[in-house]
Amino acid sequence: MTEHNYPLLDKGFIRLVEMLGDDMGVVNAARVSFGQEGKGDDRDKKLIDYLMRNGHETPFEHALFKFHVKCPIFVARQWFRHRWASYNEISGRYTTFQEEFYVPEHFRVQVGKNYQFEDVTGEKNDQLRQLLQKTYDDLFALYQKLLAEGVAKELARMILPVATYTQFYWTVNARSVFNFLKLRNEEHAQYEIRVYADAIAKVMKDKMPWCYESFERHYLRPDVPPSL
Amino acid sequence: MTEHNYPLLDKGFIRLVEMLGDDMGVVNAARVSFGQEGKGDDRDKKLIDYLMRNGHETPFEHALFKFHVKCPIFVARQWFRHRWASYNEISGRYTTFQEEFYVPEHFRVQVGKNYQFEDVTGEKNDQLRQLLQKTYDDLFALYQKLLAEGVAKELARMILPVATYTQFYWTVNARSVFNFLKLRNEEHAQYEIRVYADAIAKVMKDKMPWCYESFERHYLRPDVPPSL
Amino acid sequence: MTEHNYPLLDKGFIRLVEMLGDDMGVVNAARVSFGQEGKGDDRDKKLIDYLMRNGHETPFEHALFKFHVKCPIFVARQWFRHRWASYNEISGRYTTFQEEFYVPEHFRVQVGKNYQFEDVTGEKNDQLRQLLQKTYDDLFALYQKLLAEGVAKELARMILPVATYTQFYWTVNARSVFNFLKLRNEEHAQYEIRVYADAIAKVMKDKMPWCYESFERHYLRPDVPPSL
Amino acid sequence: MTEHNYPLLDKGFIRLVEMLGDDMGVVNAARVSFGQEGKGDDRDKKLIDYLMRNGHETPFEHALFKFHVKCPIFVARQWFRHRWASYNEISGRYTTFQEEFYVPEHFRVQVGKNYQFEDVTGEKNDQLRQLLQKTYDDLFALYQKLLAEGVAKELARMILPVATYTQFYWTVNARSVFNFLKLRNEEHAQYEIRVYADAIAKVMKDKMPWCYESFERHYLRPDVPPSL
Repeated sequence: MTEHNYPLLDKGFIRLVEMLGDDMGVVNAARVSFGQEGKGDDRDKKLIDYLMRNGHETPFEHALFKFHVKCPIFVARQWFRHRWASYNEISGRYTTFQEEFYVPEHFRVQVGKNYQFEDVTGEKNDQLRQLLQKTYDDLFALYQKLLAEGVAKELARMILPVATYTQFYWTVNARSVFNFLKLRNEEHAQYEIRVYADAIAKVMKDKMPWCYESFERHYLRPDVPPSL
Repeated sequence: MTEHNYPLLDKGFIRLVEMLGDDMGVVNAARVSFGQEGKGDDRDKKLIDYLMRNGHETPFEHALFKFHVKCPIFVARQWFRHRWASYNEISGRYTTFQEEFYVPEHFRVQVGKNYQFEDVTGEKNDQLRQLLQKTYDDLFALYQKLLAEGVAKELARMILPVATYTQFYWTVNARSVFNFLKLRNEEHAQYEIRVYADAIAKVMKDKMPWCYESFERHYLRPDVPPSL
Repeated sequence: MTEHNYPLLDKGFIRLVEMLGDDMGVVNAARVSFGQEGKGDDRDKKLIDYLMRNGHETPFEHALFKFHVKCPIFVARQWFRHRWASYNEISGRYTTFQEEFYVPEHFRVQVGKNYQFEDVTGEKNDQLRQLLQKTYDDLFALYQKLLAEGVAKELARMILPVATYTQFYWTVNARSVFNFLKLRNEEHAQYEIRVYADAIAKVMKDKMPWCYESFERHYLRPDVPPSL
Repeated sequence: MTEHNYPLLDKGFIRLVEMLGDDMGVVNAARVSFGQEGKGDDRDKKLIDYLMRNGHETPFEHALFKFHVKCPIFVARQWFRHRWASYNEISGRYTTFQEEFYVPEHFRVQVGKNYQFEDVTGEKNDQLRQLLQKTYDDLFALYQKLLAEGVAKELARMILPVATYTQFYWTVNARSVFNFLKLRNEEHAQYEIRVYADAIAKVMKDKMPWCYESFERHYLRPDVPPSL
């Protein structure tokens, strides 16, 4: 499934490995309540909209996605809070981390009190980025030094920053994906995870177009109260 | 996936609708811990056995199965206790039940105290089966009478017995399937659900042969203490 | 906790066995995000309202309830669909069912197409109730006859109707309870489970008054689109 | 519940905030299968042992614990993999981290291939600890500098190491706790999380002595195959 392979942030990515089911899988799971199957027509599309609008979420559990994700640890930490999903992650106990740390294109400063931000630009941004890179270089050198002295990987990695890139497999059903998008593809979510959520939204839009259209209509409307 | 379609009991079935992943999916999910992928060789098979033996269960969550099941309600009630899975079932509120009730080939009587049973045979078994069928006929006639008088389906169905056949979709990962098999394909489980568990075991054996072989070796050994 | 013990329907009940946490437990769980604790004042109440309104549901998981429930099997089947909760139920394999079946005070007939109902009254209702009781009497006599002939309990119970009363323990966090109320204390839910949901709502209102008030305001408003 | 309050590692702790249920809660949940309650006598203790030995895990879900935990981020990351539990954690987006980083009493070097370790001692250990402390000092100074320049907390924290202490509430049932202990209070688990698991084991031993005794007998025996 090479068609959904998105480079994200400066060194991350998300790629769809495989999937099971689609819009009609949702329809068929819902229609089993009535002892029927869907026909792929307009009534099926309306049924999906009805289910989405009214919070009948179980039929959306019968479509599933397996993603391979590479992201900074602080993004992964927000991600792993979503418990109705399966994860297997690269282990810092058994593997040596690569020299890969997240450097934002633009630093952000907070303006106002409601977690609104403004990009730092120009020379100041360059300086901050250089300072960050220098810090990462020093930390990785120290990490290597500790390993060279025989320190166990599980301890040496302690000094690595939460900006370090990690990788994991994420297998998850569509209901859980939509919940993820509700909370993470949203103006109050941190920019860095929104970038990932936005790529996942693209996958959903392509692979489950009817479901995504309903989701967008009912949950991404501007008048829905914003979450934290 | 017509190859896995099993008629079970007198009127039930299980059929595999679709699936995602296989033995190598488990291997790849596990190897991501080491920043590697599997190669399909003997070391991968050993890795699966290692994971299964030592209770490292998360890699088994990355293979998934969608089944269509038809079984008596009392079997479905045992089934739905398995919460790490997705279900959508035919609704007795919106649909009229068919005249389909489970009639065992042989009644069983309990012998001894440890829930061991013996089949009833010959004339006595025939009489019990006829009595059962007669009861079902009467109940279904009453169900139809209530419906004919305008009684809401959700109330009319109250008198239907737990032997009534129901249908549902079951989408579930391999970890949860193996747990199901541990508890339900086991000598203390009720015969009627074991019949289903046994068919599911056939699917697993065919679709995830390395995993199933390890599962069988470590969890179906005769010296493992029996469960309730 | 004898203060919350509600007889429901003709032979059922719900009683609160014990609980952990309260409104302040939710506040403290939420404030840990800010490295703070709550003080029980108006700002805490506003925080709860903010969390409830915006779907920040995890803090509500830190309050828990253990209920003892007795209800008809067809109600239990709807109940057990709620998977983020713990159940232990009386077993028809090990125990002989009591002669306890649900007889509705009023039968209902469907009027219109949208699952709206009207009570049957007067003589017709009496006749239906007598017919129902007669059926239950016959079925229970048959159940006893089968047991007397030595038929295993797990098979004899097959003929019992889904109106048979069962009992279970239900341990569940407040987030999951509120979700239950959203779906089951709602005009499209079946009357028989709404009766239980309504009693649970009383418990929540008493034990977590700030949470319940917010829940009511944001999720039980008449303009919220009805669910199935 | 001040009696269970354990300082752990150099700056962490675990404390029991509250709990619901005990050994008899498990017994009562199990005996509901038989339509009975427990009596607190020897047969109840045997029942617990039977349930534990045979993997009948649902009755253990009816006892629950709420812990307040302070531990390094890399420990929290292992912890949060346990999904059947509730978490609320201090947020690095809304709160400024304290200057609290984990400094091991002894560094460890790997000896042999099976993740066996030996403590570093004497002067070498002192040097490594000083180097570590110096690195933490520099990182925290940089964190403060970034904040002083107006950089958003959510970005400034990127450079903090995974050894930074975090705090969270953990509400979890006894079944899930025992699973945690199986995987984390075990010789292949990382030392730093074992320290926490060991303190939790003390709580279980005190609060659910019959359950813990059975757990210890059946799952912590030396002949049980070690996990990863």
